[in-house]
Amino acid sequence: MNIYDVSKKAGVSIATISRVLNGNQNVSDKTKQKVLTVMEELGYTPNVFARGLGLNTMHTIGIMCSDSSDIFLANAVYYLEQALRKNGYEAFLCCTGYELENKRKYLRLLLSKRVDAVIMVGSHYLESAKQDNDYIMEAADEMPVMMINGYLSHPNIYCTLCDDYQAMFDAVCRLAGHGRKRFLFLYRSDSNSSRNKRRGFCDGLAHTGLPCSGASVRLCPDDILSVRDLLLSLYEEGCTYDAILTAEDSLAVAAVKFAGAAGLCVPKELEIVGYNNSLLCVCTEPELSTLDNHVETLSITTVAALMRILQGADVPNKTTISNDFIVRGTAY
Amino acid sequence: MNIYDVSKKAGVSIATISRVLNGNQNVSDKTKQKVLTVMEELGYTPNVFARGLGLNTMHTIGIMCSDSSDIFLANAVYYLEQALRKNGYEAFLCCTGYELENKRKYLRLLLSKRVDAVIMVGSHYLESAKQDNDYIMEAADEMPVMMINGYLSHPNIYCTLCDDYQAMFDAVCRLAGHGRKRFLFLYRSDSNSSRNKRRGFCDGLAHTGLPCSGASVRLCPDDILSVRDLLLSLYEEGCTYDAILTAEDSLAVAAVKFAGAAGLCVPKELEIVGYNNSLLCVCTEPELSTLDNHVETLSITTVAALMRILQGADVPNKTTISNDFIVRGTAY
Repeated sequence: MNIYDVSKKAGVSIATISRVLNGNQNVSDKTKQKVLTVMEELGYTPNVFARGLGLNTMHTIGIMCSDSSDIFLANAVYYLEQALRKNGYEAFLCCTGYELENKRKYLRLLLSKRVDAVIMVGSHYLESAKQDNDYIMEAADEMPVMMINGYLSHPNIYCTLCDDYQAMFDAVCRLAGHGRKRFLFLYRSDSNSSRNKRRGFCDGLAHTGLPCSGASVRLCPDDILSVRDLLLSLYEEGCTYDAILTAEDSLAVAAVKFAGAAGLCVPKELEIVGYNNSLLCVCTEPELSTLDNHVETLSITTVAALMRILQGADVPNKTTISNDFIVRGTAY
Repeated sequence: MNIYDVSKKAGVSIATISRVLNGNQNVSDKTKQKVLTVMEELGYTPNVFARGLGLNTMHTIGIMCSDSSDIFLANAVYYLEQALRKNGYEAFLCCTGYELENKRKYLRLLLSKRVDAVIMVGSHYLESAKQDNDYIMEAADEMPVMMINGYLSHPNIYCTLCDDYQAMFDAVCRLAGHGRKRFLFLYRSDSNSSRNKRRGFCDGLAHTGLPCSGASVRLCPDDILSVRDLLLSLYEEGCTYDAILTAEDSLAVAAVKFAGAAGLCVPKELEIVGYNNSLLCVCTEPELSTLDNHVETLSITTVAALMRILQGADVPNKTTISNDFIVRGTAY
């Protein structure tokens, strides 16, 4: 089914169809209606890249990320783009934001562009309500969908994840081994990755025989100074902690600032662990100990898998990469 | 001139031309040669997006940035993408790196894709050797070229800049007004923007009657801890400063770390000024005073200008946005 079939059946030139598709005013309403009706009858989906020319590949990969200004995601986009380029593919970047409706819209858009595949970067692409992920599985029926830090069990969806659960579980055990007893976990958004970290945190506490109440886990505001103030007000209310683990480095930065303001000695009185091993780690004093989720490896692994998929190879649906505990100044 | 003309003149179907263009093996050498000869005679350039369908616009804008993992550039890409999307345009992101040859290659690539325009983000797209910018001017003969923090005087090149020179000049005068006498300027790369900052720094010193020697200006290594160590070794050699201005926030972070290690009181004994007003500013203790170059405004202004250009409006070739001095903890 292509533009030539539409042209033949509607009895108009390809140039006319092109004008209709582009919203050009120089087409009569009658002709426009005829073309649209034929397109519907034939089930023809206009494809602005390969429109009707039978091109099977544009060597273009869609990259979706919720926010390219996020340090982790910006790094992932950078490494993905480099790796794709090396393999002769272009990257088509969409910053979708966090709203489900926009994610759906952008994925449809990429489908209509007939990209060779889509890479969804970040665990924000996995909704907690199961049916909210249907749009991803529908897309996977048409092209390979690669997910970084998201996992859906469905044909043609390939996932590369870092083991957030295990990393957090191990970090809790490590700090409990230092005699830490009053743990706090800070996170910022309800993504799949942050849910896994939270589970790892709670299970780690259970494993070491420590309690995990609702108060041990805190959803934080967006900016560093507000998080510092939240911690200060908790501290003034009598909540004292000797170990703060976080879902991202910026929250650990806030914890370091809180400790400074409260006069707590880090890491002696309070151990703090970041997450991502980002540039922020070396900005604080002391520098952040952190869990490195290997964004470069995640990105390169994803592109390597995609290249094999596009060559028709059999590739496992899930690849998990383990994190590393990086010791700097805020935790032993 | 389009694919139909080629089809007619070569006496082959459009599908055949498509096969030739895609390197499909199912075309005889003879046919292939005929098609290529006709294409050359007619001066027809294949266009993989709008190939021959007479589509004048793909509503696609190429964005070139040297490194999307750089915080400033990542933010710019983010704001550009959002603004383009709001106007119904897609963004096609190329991370070109810093090599001239790669920049050239990527710009040619975007030209061949017939994007509606290109946005070059960051002052790394302006080479110091004049003839090295010829490739940008050649591209501008074919489509609008928008530059953020770069300036070339040439038809169809439109530049949005922050006034790095004036910002640095004013910052020097401000700190000199506090009685500072021993100034140091730190920068990381030889971009157009960093050259302007350096000029502003030196002229500011001259204006206030202070000396500006080669030793007042330092090219720094890439990572924060190496810069801190460089400053420490200068300090141990007897170079003392009471004002450190920088070309980017990460260098100011290094200066704060140096001050901490050397036991200098910031800002009392040493004022430090960052550049960009990035997330890093609130990570240090004290927090960074910085020059805000308004990356969001730069991006939005660029897209607004581009939309007017694409609608045929007359738009000035150069728009300059002034910076703001943001007072936090490292400078008054």
